[in-house]
Amino acid sequence: MIEFWYEFASTYSYPAAMRVEAMAADAGVAIAWRPFLLGPLFNEQQGLTDSPFNAFPVKGAYMWRDMARICEEEGLPLVHPSEFPRNTLLAARVAIAGLEDGWTPAFSRGVYEANFAHDQDISSPEVLAPLIAAAGGAPDHALAAAHSAPVKALLKEHVEMARGRGIFGSPSFITADGELFWGNDRLESALAWAQHHQSLEHA
Amino acid sequence: MIEFWYEFASTYSYPAAMRVEAMAADAGVAIAWRPFLLGPLFNEQQGLTDSPFNAFPVKGAYMWRDMARICEEEGLPLVHPSEFPRNTLLAARVAIAGLEDGWTPAFSRGVYEANFAHDQDISSPEVLAPLIAAAGGAPDHALAAAHSAPVKALLKEHVEMARGRGIFGSPSFITADGELFWGNDRLESALAWAQHHQSLEHA
Repeated sequence: MIEFWYEFASTYSYPAAMRVEAMAADAGVAIAWRPFLLGPLFNEQQGLTDSPFNAFPVKGAYMWRDMARICEEEGLPLVHPSEFPRNTLLAARVAIAGLEDGWTPAFSRGVYEANFAHDQDISSPEVLAPLIAAAGGAPDHALAAAHSAPVKALLKEHVEMARGRGIFGSPSFITADGELFWGNDRLESALAWAQHHQSLEHA
Repeated sequence: MIEFWYEFASTYSYPAAMRVEAMAADAGVAIAWRPFLLGPLFNEQQGLTDSPFNAFPVKGAYMWRDMARICEEEGLPLVHPSEFPRNTLLAARVAIAGLEDGWTPAFSRGVYEANFAHDQDISSPEVLAPLIAAAGGAPDHALAAAHSAPVKALLKEHVEMARGRGIFGSPSFITADGELFWGNDRLESALAWAQHHQSLEHA
């Protein structure tokens, strides 16, 4: 098992979200999808009030070029969103609401595509509703649930869990034995670690 | 051809320096070794006055664990140096001084091993002298050259070149057509890009 921790505003989490399910299936490793909010951690840990890619333009210039290369290699469309980073509170709460019924993975891919391929405002319920439906959820029900106390509390709990696990960026992968891997380009390492751990458990 | 930009205090540059030459040779890609100083860029670009791994402990904790995993996989010894980051001005100047006579690669590997495998003070001429000799240089001559105006000027020029190329971290790799790749884990991508570019040039 690996935990896949992701923030919807995170650029590198887009290619990770698009490939994690197929790669984990090939590796025989289960995935726990863990939507969270990175903004509070950026602020607490690094004093940031904006994306580091905006705060430090030289890092932003590199990231957008690097993303273009990665997405081209993966066959993923990419636009530089007209607003970056977008507010992801509602989308994260909807993703939490979908965990029980299993449509969170497909919904999450839809949100990343909306933001980074179609430049849609993923903070808007009108944008999210068709993504919920396409993933197999009931939009009205899910959007109402997103505003419920249990879903809000669970998202807060995810942020606290992320903090407790030493997460400081997205995407992050955590194996069952607690190894943290940060970044889309470390997904292979995380899966290899998880496979090795599983084979030891069953040895 | 790829340019290999490296700062001696940089942890992830240690495994990169140890493997770049063999990997580039296998790929049929030449390497230009480009020692530089990252401190001035960290300060200008991000307002940092210390390593980000000290300034942001959560990132430091991850990096040391990640380095332990990488070095174990690569078969490289690793210690957490008793002083981090060490002052690398003299070592960088010596590396510049060795470029013309070709002993910079071996010297640079020696400096990384001294710092990250043997916890030696790489700011000390006494530590550097045997590393120069082992790499094929003349210690007295090289240490004198390190204090000469042309070598000081060339190191400054390297820092300016790094700034101009959009470098913000170490190791960084730049291909002949100007693509920047940041991080030890992007060496494979940089070499693949360079190979593709070379095959287009000769097509």
